[in-house]
Amino acid sequence: MAKDNEKKQGFVEHITPRDVDFSQWYTDIILKSELVDYSPVRGCMVLRPYGFAIWESIKEQMDKRFKETGHENVYMPMLIPESLLLKEAEHVEGFAPEVAWVTHGGNEKLQERLAIRPTSETIFCAMYSKWVSSWRDLPMKYNQWCSVMRWEKSTRPFLRTSEFLWQEGHTIHATPEEAQEETMQMLEVYREVAEDELAMPVIVGQKSEKEKFAGARATYSMEAMMQDGKALQAGTSHNFGTNFAEAFDIQYLNKEGKLTYVHETSWGTSTRLIGAIIMTHGDERGLKLPPHIAPTQVVIVPIAAHKGGVIEKCNEVFSELKGLDLRVKLDDRDTLSPGFKFNDWELKGVPVRVEVGPRDIENGQCVVFRRDTYEKQTVALADLATVLPELLEDIQQNMFRIAADFRQSRIAEAHNMEELEKVVDGGFAKTMWCGERACEDEIKEKLSASSRNMPFDQTPIGDTCVCCGKKADKVIYFAKAY
Amino acid sequence: MAKDNEKKQGFVEHITPRDVDFSQWYTDIILKSELVDYSPVRGCMVLRPYGFAIWESIKEQMDKRFKETGHENVYMPMLIPESLLLKEAEHVEGFAPEVAWVTHGGNEKLQERLAIRPTSETIFCAMYSKWVSSWRDLPMKYNQWCSVMRWEKSTRPFLRTSEFLWQEGHTIHATPEEAQEETMQMLEVYREVAEDELAMPVIVGQKSEKEKFAGARATYSMEAMMQDGKALQAGTSHNFGTNFAEAFDIQYLNKEGKLTYVHETSWGTSTRLIGAIIMTHGDERGLKLPPHIAPTQVVIVPIAAHKGGVIEKCNEVFSELKGLDLRVKLDDRDTLSPGFKFNDWELKGVPVRVEVGPRDIENGQCVVFRRDTYEKQTVALADLATVLPELLEDIQQNMFRIAADFRQSRIAEAHNMEELEKVVDGGFAKTMWCGERACEDEIKEKLSASSRNMPFDQTPIGDTCVCCGKKADKVIYFAKAY
Repeated sequence: MAKDNEKKQGFVEHITPRDVDFSQWYTDIILKSELVDYSPVRGCMVLRPYGFAIWESIKEQMDKRFKETGHENVYMPMLIPESLLLKEAEHVEGFAPEVAWVTHGGNEKLQERLAIRPTSETIFCAMYSKWVSSWRDLPMKYNQWCSVMRWEKSTRPFLRTSEFLWQEGHTIHATPEEAQEETMQMLEVYREVAEDELAMPVIVGQKSEKEKFAGARATYSMEAMMQDGKALQAGTSHNFGTNFAEAFDIQYLNKEGKLTYVHETSWGTSTRLIGAIIMTHGDERGLKLPPHIAPTQVVIVPIAAHKGGVIEKCNEVFSELKGLDLRVKLDDRDTLSPGFKFNDWELKGVPVRVEVGPRDIENGQCVVFRRDTYEKQTVALADLATVLPELLEDIQQNMFRIAADFRQSRIAEAHNMEELEKVVDGGFAKTMWCGERACEDEIKEKLSASSRNMPFDQTPIGDTCVCCGKKADKVIYFAKAY
Repeated sequence: MAKDNEKKQGFVEHITPRDVDFSQWYTDIILKSELVDYSPVRGCMVLRPYGFAIWESIKEQMDKRFKETGHENVYMPMLIPESLLLKEAEHVEGFAPEVAWVTHGGNEKLQERLAIRPTSETIFCAMYSKWVSSWRDLPMKYNQWCSVMRWEKSTRPFLRTSEFLWQEGHTIHATPEEAQEETMQMLEVYREVAEDELAMPVIVGQKSEKEKFAGARATYSMEAMMQDGKALQAGTSHNFGTNFAEAFDIQYLNKEGKLTYVHETSWGTSTRLIGAIIMTHGDERGLKLPPHIAPTQVVIVPIAAHKGGVIEKCNEVFSELKGLDLRVKLDDRDTLSPGFKFNDWELKGVPVRVEVGPRDIENGQCVVFRRDTYEKQTVALADLATVLPELLEDIQQNMFRIAADFRQSRIAEAHNMEELEKVVDGGFAKTMWCGERACEDEIKEKLSASSRNMPFDQTPIGDTCVCCGKKADKVIYFAKAY
């Protein structure tokens, strides 16, 4: 109750500083800005309205691009019979330890256990093998938005929870070339959403054999750098080749009338992206949302709201901005002070605040505050409609630039284990690697860092492996990771 | 393979006539128009792209109205601990027999069984009790889009499946009046979507004690009539009063500083609505979709597509209609005949077809076919942009009118059991009822009909119960139901 009263009296809720305890800073932000809450179910979180609204924004950006690139949404059953899960050997091995099992329906014990989907390759494959018969049926490019379940030992909201929301694309193609093209196309869609909409620079490239998806021939990822210098894998795109097609017998009659296996891909992003946004952009005042995906882009706060004409003018401004298709909110809560509201919306990361008080109205102006730089400027009310859209775009660009500069300052080359140790203590190391798993294992054990990906630009920065010193021709990033 | 070849050669796939076997007609349509497919998981269906696209249309119409009426979307965990499910006695009794239980996570047996949500009242209540402390926090008006699981013995796609997609709204309020207002408001939102967007007339009213939701103080429903005269409950809205608030201790400090229970509602609609659309509008040629929610409103079919200029003109028309924000598709598949395409799009229920051939182009015109009446008309290409939007609206209205007329022809008053028996054999009976459950049970046993709801217009049509003949003051509908 004490805390509750404090909030009502207008104190700022305390957020642990980033440099004191990054992890506690993260937890403070997600709980205090009411993105999520813990639930009575072990390892499962609740997405509160504000957190879910951010997910809806991201979803809209993704889904639009999926459809533009010819994909269709479907919905597959969430339960997968154990026998189906067992069909592709590597896949089972990867997922079986973290599956939640349904054993009873009503009062009856089931004849076969059912897994709550940890991912849906197997059920998509079962259906594809039923649907495909001729080359005319190809490609099939489907996606689904759903939740998946992975029984995790230790969890953190958005980053690792037993249940999480995601999208999973699953496509089948006639040729290996088409499948590879699809894999690359979707990685590019992910990069575009991350950089252009979430203002989050990413490194795209191929995962090592050790780090690739269970059952894939090749996995590609985008890796973002958080403000503690750790990596966060923000999306993956897999080429399965014919691995699953062979296990599930997905064949088609080609133009020559010959039975042929299809080539398959899958790709996914999840609510993890919200964790990535927080740790890329957040600061001591809380969340900082890129305008393109902020559920509220502009909040209007009346000053001395009881004075004649203030609320009326705020409503006018609200209608005008609404008419521009801006996502705008008028905070007319009458039990809270303007100061409390300022803190509240800064905590929630709203990009722009517009303050309107009696004196402003007299002068035909208002005060505009930008969340990214804390700068205030006075703007004529008549100019708001032109100033705000430009300002929002400027904030979007500025947030990307700041994140890119930060990342640049934390990326360094490492040519031996001593250098590697220094760089991965708060940054990404660009290194040469021989390709042996033993070196990845050794780096993991000694430095707690893992290989992130091999970027597409493979211009060598040396010719010996950072770990074993033998001949190396692979450029690869290592970092500590979420 | 024989069937596959047949399809490729352009034969119409056979649909069982409605009056021969309504149930088989339904199954033929949903499978042949590729809305759904059976899955390897007992009782669970796959929503294929076309079926899912219809759901996305319905969802958009609903979600828009939820937000306009001040609701916010959230996401709650899909697993509910058994102890939580047991808290409200009636609720458990209603749902326990059809729960799917998770007993193992990875290789470990769980200490407590977890239910896959059959509905989410209990988890919403657990969170509300954590979030609410003062009158300032009220109301909370949340909704979630998700799937739920009910272990059904016998299933039919869209109508009754173990897993299905739905939305469930859950709100808490300070006063009984507000909760009742919310319950009615959402019932009205449902009615509006059903009648204005799905072109499906519904009867709204209150459920009997026997038929209400497990744990509700009052349940309201909308009931639609299918073309076999049976009723389909298409949406429900519940007022819980303080039932759940007492079980879950959801209290707030009111303005006088006194701890008070909140008043709660919940309301839901599901993919069942797609089944309702099929059985309200479908005909011998297949599905018939109302333009407002048809994923494709207009399909363009080129005639003699190999002739010079035809595909070019079709592309032109396509771009023009796309520019009008119509949902339009150009069927340029080059291995299929126009005749096959006509049948295919009629099967899929696309409201309008535009045919463009060489002679049409010469005359600056095209042929426009409307799916609802099978009428063809010649339209000048220059007029398409004005004719089509009006035509689509006319089809929407006409479909509603036809459904409403059909329903009117199948509703009759029944004053005794003999009349009731006749009317419920293919229609809705409007009757007087004494209010005793014994009469509902007797009618169910003798006539396989159940009470649907008590309409808000309670103008009596008699004063004795249709079953027991005793004094009755309730107007109520009886029908056989899905």
